[in-house]
Amino acid sequence: MTAPALVLHGYWRSSAAYRVRIGLGLKGLVWQDRPVHLVRDGGEQHGAAHVALNPQQLVPVLEHAGRVLTQSLAILEYLDEAFPGTPALLPADPAGRAQVRALAQLIACDVHPLNNLRVMQYLGRELAADEAARARWTAHWMEEGFAAMETLLAQRSPPGDFCHGDRPGQADCCLVPQLYNARRFGVDLGRYPRLLQIEQACLALPAFAAAAPEAQPDAVAV
Amino acid sequence: MTAPALVLHGYWRSSAAYRVRIGLGLKGLVWQDRPVHLVRDGGEQHGAAHVALNPQQLVPVLEHAGRVLTQSLAILEYLDEAFPGTPALLPADPAGRAQVRALAQLIACDVHPLNNLRVMQYLGRELAADEAARARWTAHWMEEGFAAMETLLAQRSPPGDFCHGDRPGQADCCLVPQLYNARRFGVDLGRYPRLLQIEQACLALPAFAAAAPEAQPDAVAV
Repeated sequence: MTAPALVLHGYWRSSAAYRVRIGLGLKGLVWQDRPVHLVRDGGEQHGAAHVALNPQQLVPVLEHAGRVLTQSLAILEYLDEAFPGTPALLPADPAGRAQVRALAQLIACDVHPLNNLRVMQYLGRELAADEAARARWTAHWMEEGFAAMETLLAQRSPPGDFCHGDRPGQADCCLVPQLYNARRFGVDLGRYPRLLQIEQACLALPAFAAAAPEAQPDAVAV
Repeated sequence: MTAPALVLHGYWRSSAAYRVRIGLGLKGLVWQDRPVHLVRDGGEQHGAAHVALNPQQLVPVLEHAGRVLTQSLAILEYLDEAFPGTPALLPADPAGRAQVRALAQLIACDVHPLNNLRVMQYLGRELAADEAARARWTAHWMEEGFAAMETLLAQRSPPGDFCHGDRPGQADCCLVPQLYNARRFGVDLGRYPRLLQIEQACLALPAFAAAAPEAQPDAVAV
């Protein structure tokens, strides 16, 4: 038996792993899931097996051809470069690529890391932030990011159903999981009609539907 | 008089602007600085002129050929693609590129955004975190990131003076400003000898020296 070509260490509700599942799906790639339970028993990501794979103790980790890849955006870039025959997640021109990457990073650098599990745990443990204070924190950074993204898309994005024109790409891979997170935390999304339109176009595609948290093998009823 | 080809809207102490200055310098590009004062009068980044450039109200912003580029890592990628004759900030092979990007994102996604000015302001204002609590917060995320980076560099980096082999690149552009920040906040760096070695190799290069906060036109004595 040969080892699977692509192995994804993720978690159904991890927003960063969700991005990579979408990217793999958009490219028509087949992968094997290795769920890492982020909550049970203090978090499997802190166990020796996962730490050996990723000293950052985070998901996702993608294994490919003996390589261990970390950081969701670096993985999405890698997929474009290592599988050149598949649909690209970035446009061809440098200006378009910069625009898509900036939208992806708006979420991946300036929204998501602030609302990560490890940060919520620190806020509760070290700063005695109760559930309401943590919810305000979460909503604050998401709303700030979504408002800027809504404006950037209106100002700069070429017309089309997605973050950049008529094909989904790296920015859409980040937006959809972030909106999923926002609903989970009760953030009001009514002020971001463009983001919701794009989300609707994305969710109509099989790659996005298959990547949804509830569709994952490790999803549990909550 | 022709408009300058490259205009950088930054701030001397902004870690993300510092990354872009290093990248521009490593490529031998010439640019014009347009300082945005992040603190004075509530922050010039929130004023109409800057908001029109970047709805995220953050620096850096790079203007080039009528394009307005945001997000430091997207800008560094753009520089590689728009100026192909200049020294590349990423290696040529997909695996090496993924490794360098993952190191850059470790800092740009998982360390820096948590210690940004806007986050420190929120912690003080909304969560009543005093100076000591904010210092612990800052140190916590930096130490977590630096420890993981030290391990990743030992495990995966090819030999050489920099984050990836014998030439500085995207990861070094992120590491040096983050170490600068760490010292500013009194973080003990003794546990990260590899990071300090790389920093030393970087700081010996003119592009890094010229990009240092204290060498900027808007630097003020503090």
